Amino acid sequence: MVQKLIFILTGVLLMLGIAMGGDLHAYTQPDPSGAKVGVTADISAANPGKPTAAEITDQIGKNKVSINMVWVLITGFLVMFMQAGFAMVEAGLTRAKNAAHTMSMNMMIYPIGMLGFFVSGFAIMFGGLGTLGTLGGYEGLNQEFAINLFGHTIGLFGMKGFFLNNVYDVGVFALFLFQMVFMDTTATIPTGSMAERWKFSAFAIYGIFVGTIIYPLYGNWVWGGGWLATLGSNFGLGHGHVDFAGSSVVHMTGGVLALVGAIIIGPRIGKYNKDGSPNAIPGHNIPMAIVGAFILAFGWFGFNPGSTLAGTDLRISVVAVNTMIASATGAAASMLYMWLFKTKKPDPTMMINGLLAGLVAITAPSAFVNVQAAALIGLISGVLVIEAAFFIEKVLKIDDPVGAVAVHGVNGAWGCLALGLFADGTYGDGWNGVAGPVTGLFYGNPGQFYAEVIGVLANIIYVGAIGWVVFKLIDVTIGNRVNPDDELDGLDIPEMGVEGYCGIRLDKNSETPLSK
Amino acid sequence: MVQKLIFILTGVLLMLGIAMGGDLHAYTQPDPSGAKVGVTADISAANPGKPTAAEITDQIGKNKVSINMVWVLITGFLVMFMQAGFAMVEAGLTRAKNAAHTMSMNMMIYPIGMLGFFVSGFAIMFGGLGTLGTLGGYEGLNQEFAINLFGHTIGLFGMKGFFLNNVYDVGVFALFLFQMVFMDTTATIPTGSMAERWKFSAFAIYGIFVGTIIYPLYGNWVWGGGWLATLGSNFGLGHGHVDFAGSSVVHMTGGVLALVGAIIIGPRIGKYNKDGSPNAIPGHNIPMAIVGAFILAFGWFGFNPGSTLAGTDLRISVVAVNTMIASATGAAASMLYMWLFKTKKPDPTMMINGLLAGLVAITAPSAFVNVQAAALIGLISGVLVIEAAFFIEKVLKIDDPVGAVAVHGVNGAWGCLALGLFADGTYGDGWNGVAGPVTGLFYGNPGQFYAEVIGVLANIIYVGAIGWVVFKLIDVTIGNRVNPDDELDGLDIPEMGVEGYCGIRLDKNSETPLSK
Amino acid sequence: MVQKLIFILTGVLLMLGIAMGGDLHAYTQPDPSGAKVGVTADISAANPGKPTAAEITDQIGKNKVSINMVWVLITGFLVMFMQAGFAMVEAGLTRAKNAAHTMSMNMMIYPIGMLGFFVSGFAIMFGGLGTLGTLGGYEGLNQEFAINLFGHTIGLFGMKGFFLNNVYDVGVFALFLFQMVFMDTTATIPTGSMAERWKFSAFAIYGIFVGTIIYPLYGNWVWGGGWLATLGSNFGLGHGHVDFAGSSVVHMTGGVLALVGAIIIGPRIGKYNKDGSPNAIPGHNIPMAIVGAFILAFGWFGFNPGSTLAGTDLRISVVAVNTMIASATGAAASMLYMWLFKTKKPDPTMMINGLLAGLVAITAPSAFVNVQAAALIGLISGVLVIEAAFFIEKVLKIDDPVGAVAVHGVNGAWGCLALGLFADGTYGDGWNGVAGPVTGLFYGNPGQFYAEVIGVLANIIYVGAIGWVVFKLIDVTIGNRVNPDDELDGLDIPEMGVEGYCGIRLDKNSETPLSK
Repeated sequence: MVQKLIFILTGVLLMLGIAMGGDLHAYTQPDPSGAKVGVTADISAANPGKPTAAEITDQIGKNKVSINMVWVLITGFLVMFMQAGFAMVEAGLTRAKNAAHTMSMNMMIYPIGMLGFFVSGFAIMFGGLGTLGTLGGYEGLNQEFAINLFGHTIGLFGMKGFFLNNVYDVGVFALFLFQMVFMDTTATIPTGSMAERWKFSAFAIYGIFVGTIIYPLYGNWVWGGGWLATLGSNFGLGHGHVDFAGSSVVHMTGGVLALVGAIIIGPRIGKYNKDGSPNAIPGHNIPMAIVGAFILAFGWFGFNPGSTLAGTDLRISVVAVNTMIASATGAAASMLYMWLFKTKKPDPTMMINGLLAGLVAITAPSAFVNVQAAALIGLISGVLVIEAAFFIEKVLKIDDPVGAVAVHGVNGAWGCLALGLFADGTYGDGWNGVAGPVTGLFYGNPGQFYAEVIGVLANIIYVGAIGWVVFKLIDVTIGNRVNPDDELDGLDIPEMGVEGYCGIRLDKNSETPLSK
Repeated sequence: MVQKLIFILTGVLLMLGIAMGGDLHAYTQPDPSGAKVGVTADISAANPGKPTAAEITDQIGKNKVSINMVWVLITGFLVMFMQAGFAMVEAGLTRAKNAAHTMSMNMMIYPIGMLGFFVSGFAIMFGGLGTLGTLGGYEGLNQEFAINLFGHTIGLFGMKGFFLNNVYDVGVFALFLFQMVFMDTTATIPTGSMAERWKFSAFAIYGIFVGTIIYPLYGNWVWGGGWLATLGSNFGLGHGHVDFAGSSVVHMTGGVLALVGAIIIGPRIGKYNKDGSPNAIPGHNIPMAIVGAFILAFGWFGFNPGSTLAGTDLRISVVAVNTMIASATGAAASMLYMWLFKTKKPDPTMMINGLLAGLVAITAPSAFVNVQAAALIGLISGVLVIEAAFFIEKVLKIDDPVGAVAVHGVNGAWGCLALGLFADGTYGDGWNGVAGPVTGLFYGNPGQFYAEVIGVLANIIYVGAIGWVVFKLIDVTIGNRVNPDDELDGLDIPEMGVEGYCGIRLDKNSETPLSK
Repeated sequence: MVQKLIFILTGVLLMLGIAMGGDLHAYTQPDPSGAKVGVTADISAANPGKPTAAEITDQIGKNKVSINMVWVLITGFLVMFMQAGFAMVEAGLTRAKNAAHTMSMNMMIYPIGMLGFFVSGFAIMFGGLGTLGTLGGYEGLNQEFAINLFGHTIGLFGMKGFFLNNVYDVGVFALFLFQMVFMDTTATIPTGSMAERWKFSAFAIYGIFVGTIIYPLYGNWVWGGGWLATLGSNFGLGHGHVDFAGSSVVHMTGGVLALVGAIIIGPRIGKYNKDGSPNAIPGHNIPMAIVGAFILAFGWFGFNPGSTLAGTDLRISVVAVNTMIASATGAAASMLYMWLFKTKKPDPTMMINGLLAGLVAITAPSAFVNVQAAALIGLISGVLVIEAAFFIEKVLKIDDPVGAVAVHGVNGAWGCLALGLFADGTYGDGWNGVAGPVTGLFYGNPGQFYAEVIGVLANIIYVGAIGWVVFKLIDVTIGNRVNPDDELDGLDIPEMGVEGYCGIRLDKNSETPLSK
């Protein structure tokens, strides 16, 4: 009765509206095509409608900065959304009894990491950056702690911008947002490799370390003007260690932390039999994991193209296409490799990991290679991620529930090396203060390849060492690992106080293998 | 066999492509770096390639309007996506047996609210707005119904743009889109506090009221040139009631409606024992709720920064960072407050509510405060949301399944007051027609704080009253509440005709507490 | 203990930061409002700070191209994200026992389709496009294979850009990205109509065909300068077959393929009784399907508004609002139509399909009609989708688990016809090389309507025929259909090797009806 009334009412109202709107296009004052907006008066001018030459050029420049700002912010938002993707992939690929715990780690790393980056991370990473070229020209991030070595300035960390203090500038804030979400990507990677057995309190302490110091220090060396960035200008190695959007800075850092953490915390109960052979522990929610993978691939369009820090740098389209194509060849290669040579099925978890491997691998070279190379880089990454995951599980006997090390660590390294091989010399003029475009080994510049190798090794050594110290420190104080009873029952109630799926019947026995 | 063929074929094709692409960078006609595009000819000119001064300034102005339009639309899209976030948070924090019902309300509020806003809401809210400054300068939204009081013009509601009729202008349409999605945010909030017992038909009727009249009226007073906006120019109270992105307009309105609705509909069966003590009714899907929270935090980057209505207003980066930081301190404070002082666990539902509380609270002040103040505002909101939720549940004995009142109502009010306290005088020159930047009590302008208080009180009184009338009207006609049998069995089949989770085994008994 | 320490520490640090930041607004060098950035020096000039007239106009043009590029890329990203929406809608509306399989098809179509489009699809579709007007002016996509018929040039397919070779230009890459995601939308539609019984290997082969040849050929005819686009300039039929964003190119193509595929593969076991009457097979996850619908509606804001290929074409706001309003009337009409005239419940699955039907129908006309017409187009689509779905299920006895044919096929056709009826003559001057705006039958131009009819018929004939050949070819070689045992048990283990929901108890019997 009431509903029929609504239906009829709605219909009548719409008809009325249409009747009234029928001759809308005859009105002249409104502008439905937009052709008449944007008149001269839109330029701020002391004498409205008659701007001076200086006012004109000012407005053109301001438009340019605005385009860059809009681009950096929106792509930064996309990267932030990747946190949801990581949460879904990691929770989907682990067990239902730990779902609230796994999701909560992935959720809280966002604020915890962010506050660490706010307190000191940003300052350490970018405090000595120099001029904010594309974002308005601010020059106050100008203090890098450096030492002198063999007559060269070796930058170690920045010193301006703690608590974003005294850098209250629109360009700095845009940079902070964009860089913070990158840090949080790194920070969330070990929650995958250490899932299903990590104390939430231990995780929270780790989160503070990664945002305040672990990530920013290496980040400074590559993106903040530190010593890896100046390998070119100082020692003639190409443009120094070039990493366009973070294969080493973000993904290797996360992957190496994930590796060290997984080693220190040890495998899940039931993962390995007495003879050392591994048992499969399938994830509880493949749909969730696949949706998470799509969110990651979506957010990656912020990650890589956004890293120009400029919408007016039209190379963004090449970056975006390379990103997309490498993810496709990665996913396709992984699917086919599993199907043909491993389990004889097109395993969805490996489709996901292949897609992500391609994305990780193309992250560093995405701006510098042509699309055919991008396809090849992704193709290789799709095979690499499977062989690496099997090697880590079966040979090294390290339990990494979601394959974080294979995806982010191994393919992060591969991405940097790929840049050193395939950079085609069509982009990057003046990168890191070195004239000429970025060019890889296959296009005639071996120095660039060496610089990539050095950056990769530096990451393994530095992140491996500091990660070891931090995880061990936590281990000997509050402990990393939950007690075995909680692990068997699931971490949701003991660690978080709520079940992930209250009212949905689980079969916890079927989830946990019995060690033989 | 077939698969091997595909694998080999793909490989061959890729190799072929790479071989063909190997010397791509040697071609000169295409432009892989983008340096050569955008030549003079891109400026429309009667004499191609030789634009006049007027044509140049026109194109600069049009570029400026385009940047603003792109910004407003994309941020509006992000806000629209928040509907999915609300749906996931609300369904995740309630029971599986009502999942289809809770999700369906959150889905249908989008079209129902939108059509209401289309029919009359937009006209009431913005019909007297005046010139569309950043979106092309259209002047046809020029009719506000106002009364004269003590010699002052007191705007009450707009009168142009019903059915978007006679305002067929690109700027108006952009404004409509952006404002509609804000209204829908308000509209969806009560579906949380009234979840698991609300008749779908009653909900649908409510949806029409909120979009056509409830929201737009208060909205007009603050954002459409109404009496709260002119408290400054009329009575010298700062810049009038300033609410940058909707702590009062959107969130308090939703929160007050949620409160009134929850009171009128009464608590769920089993929520309270005979002695008045509450039982916990845990949500059925924490992963879904957390993903929803991330979607909300993602969409909030549209909500707040988009509210400049201009990508050329570079304050957007400060707004975005403040938004982000307040959400982080909110989530961190909530987590720690629960962990240390309440349940002794880092409760995921309160992580979510703390994150959202920080976002709600920073919404009004996000453009006007510095980042340190944003951190403090969020920190306070994270504690406030918990104390408010406990107070509403245990003292007031109002059953709000998802904490909507504590999140949106209480922290909406706190956000407006925070603006009145912390606005630092670096932004907002000329806001609401008052010269000089917006400045709060702590920076020397008590009048701004009073204006915030008045706006908050006006919201409580007006929305409380009209909400009471609407919900009571529905109650005495078709009734708000489902019958008890349906409530115990779950609303999915009786109300919606389908189960939320067909084929997945639920344990409905474990979901519903027995009242003692 | 540790946690209390963190809490106090965080508090202290924040207070410290706030204390330090208290007088931030007094600093003059940083620029918190952004008013001072964008100075003259931002214009690249040989003589810094003193740009010549040519440098000024160049930078204005480059800003314009940048705005367009940013718009095309971001809207393209949104369209890509729709893949997640399709995956969720299709998996949610089908059974839990096939969840991993349904999701995996929706995931892998993304890389498989993309690689096909990379290899040949893009070249066939856009190889003869001509000048890239809004994206930098590249002219290398200049070779269309055409025949001469009655003195008219009849374009059939493009021939430049295989493997993106020799078209290494920023504009081409942006176009490739935007168009690839459209193709993938088409490609994923049949995975819905053929769900729960399709061999994954057969699906993969199909995926290659759709991206390399099926989609691009029809696409060339409409968007690449082919014969349907020139029906206007050649034969005086309006502006030729106009399809702004793909009601025919994308949705009908997908819908017709979905229809042919569903016919050839046959209904699911248990769908039809011996007397031919259908059984309902409810979906397993309504929340997932609704979230998917929101993602689709969100992504559609990229789909339609992005199709201007220009952020400087301010008609984007009208396109966005039309898109939104049609989705609302579609969803509302479907809900009410089911509630009043069919099942007497506001069925969530039909809310979803109504929303999507409105979106599909408005896709073609979104730029050319006024908002009142958009409301009507959506309203009709909401009824049409229900009647079509019932007709297909009950009369034609074709089993389309998610209603893909009714949503995309039927409403795709309706969208094109609606353009031919309602185009209001306020937009589209010069479209397809015909002077004057695009105008429909109701506004006086019957020729435009005829062109729409021809395009619709051409789609049905061409896509129906090639689809039939491809699906039959697969059928007689490797076969489309899984064996009956696997279908009854669920496809997840036999086809994909993993369960969709390991550890969550399913009730497979309740999912599958018994044929009577």
